[in-house]
Amino acid sequence: MANNAAPLEKLIEEFAKFPGIGRKGATRMAYQVLSMSDEDAQSLAQAIQDAHTRLHRCPVCQNFTEQEICPICAGAKRDKSVICVVEKPRDVQAFERTREYHGMYHVLHGLISPMDGVGAEQLSVKELLARLKDGTVQEVIMAMNPTVEGEATAMYLAKLIKPLGIRTTRLAYGLPVGSSLEYTDETTLYRALAGRDEL
Amino acid sequence: MANNAAPLEKLIEEFAKFPGIGRKGATRMAYQVLSMSDEDAQSLAQAIQDAHTRLHRCPVCQNFTEQEICPICAGAKRDKSVICVVEKPRDVQAFERTREYHGMYHVLHGLISPMDGVGAEQLSVKELLARLKDGTVQEVIMAMNPTVEGEATAMYLAKLIKPLGIRTTRLAYGLPVGSSLEYTDETTLYRALAGRDEL
Repeated sequence: MANNAAPLEKLIEEFAKFPGIGRKGATRMAYQVLSMSDEDAQSLAQAIQDAHTRLHRCPVCQNFTEQEICPICAGAKRDKSVICVVEKPRDVQAFERTREYHGMYHVLHGLISPMDGVGAEQLSVKELLARLKDGTVQEVIMAMNPTVEGEATAMYLAKLIKPLGIRTTRLAYGLPVGSSLEYTDETTLYRALAGRDEL
Repeated sequence: MANNAAPLEKLIEEFAKFPGIGRKGATRMAYQVLSMSDEDAQSLAQAIQDAHTRLHRCPVCQNFTEQEICPICAGAKRDKSVICVVEKPRDVQAFERTREYHGMYHVLHGLISPMDGVGAEQLSVKELLARLKDGTVQEVIMAMNPTVEGEATAMYLAKLIKPLGIRTTRLAYGLPVGSSLEYTDETTLYRALAGRDEL
């Protein structure tokens, strides 16, 4: 809308750049900013700048951190022989919430997707391979989403890692806990059947 | 999650304050900020500050503006004898989009809602009444949402304005254009019937 004041229009455009936020949502957010107190708006702007200046990628696992090396990579109690490779930082959080995984992580910051022009060189694959050189790591777990891009990335990495004599595994496919057989799609059901376990 | 770095956690909290944005959406947005280039993050923070410092309420209609008096209030071609009273700035935009209304506006910045502790003194009612003193205004249109709060606010304002000898109207209730009779709720249908027009 041309009749918005320029600073308002600019702010709407900025908010509309976020994934999942359309023009309408961005407009609501922009007006919310206008109705904030001066301190609140200042605090929001500051939080954005702080996140950007104070956080950087951990040189080991590539997750975002405020410290020189992230708390997980620096953790004395973590099992350094296993690396769980994930697409994005939020996936690390998901694993940490299970409280059952005590190994290391590696964040790729994306998945290989030729359709979107994302190749291995845009991901932190080089950094992952560098971590496998000193013989500490005995297993690399591929923990990407069960999608076409996730599968392709896992396959690609496995081809690079297996020749190094390191065990390469991936997450199990199967029924989600609490789900209903009746509403499970065929592929998942087939995978659950193929991967059945001894009781 | 306690295991988020402090600046990230702070940013998530800031985003989660927006209406309609939950913890998950805020987390997505925060990570989006982290993956922005430095200039983009700077530009977003700047837009927030600019909107706040460069926009203020028009002293006449109370809408947000960059100028001393907003373009609508300053417009030579606008009909100064009619004021359309709305809840929020976005409602002004909605009317402007019709291109059929050429009068003035007054933005209340809220509706009377005793449940939420919002009384007339928190709204720009005083400023509205001040505009009615010099005899220019001949009609005040109540254009609040057709809700309990909207109705209550319209009634309250009408009580204050009518004694001044100024015509007080409100938007018509009826069927939304393009809607289906079959799926229209009873109240709307009743209102449409009661307000039927000569063909």
